[in-house]
Amino acid sequence: MKEQTKSMKPYYYEKCPVIRALDILGGKWRLAIIWELSRYDSMRYNELKRHLSGITNIMLTRSLQALEQHDLITRNELCQIPPHVEYAITERCKSLLPALEIINEWGKLEK
Amino acid sequence: MKEQTKSMKPYYYEKCPVIRALDILGGKWRLAIIWELSRYDSMRYNELKRHLSGITNIMLTRSLQALEQHDLITRNELCQIPPHVEYAITERCKSLLPALEIINEWGKLEK
Repeated sequence: MKEQTKSMKPYYYEKCPVIRALDILGGKWRLAIIWELSRYDSMRYNELKRHLSGITNIMLTRSLQALEQHDLITRNELCQIPPHVEYAITERCKSLLPALEIINEWGKLEK
Repeated sequence: MKEQTKSMKPYYYEKCPVIRALDILGGKWRLAIIWELSRYDSMRYNELKRHLSGITNIMLTRSLQALEQHDLITRNELCQIPPHVEYAITERCKSLLPALEIINEWGKLEK
């Protein structure tokens, strides 16, 4: 039998694209942010905060950073008066929206 | 101002069907189980365990119980020799598969 220093069988996680995707999409708040942003061209931080009742500043900031790192959202600094930041989903993220639509319909039937 | 005993604004979780659905679909292992079961008519416990490299017995047992409670899988006891149990996804669960297909394709592009 071939010598197995470490379990040669990769964890399921590494093999399965569905799990890899959900690793990136992460917890509920990241999907909630994507879902909200998908309904507008772009949104400011405070607008997002108002729409996501219950989210803390720390959670919103961290989730936005993670989504930006994974090229799911863009963060644009607008030099207007007053200067402000706007968030929007990327084309890469838009390719996921049909899946979220299906999940959204499915969730409506769940009591 | 209307008297607010408790924050009247429901947490985002309760309002958003996408989040409610993901609450039910739960962690990665439940989706992995659905994904594996979706590729066969039915599977036995040990078959599932072999396909889901890295999952523990406790995690598999709990995940199967939760999925059954939410009417996402069925558990059939077959009185054959030897008697055994087979798991299969329900029609309700099948309606989610198009979403998982999209997420699966999306996950393949993620390095």
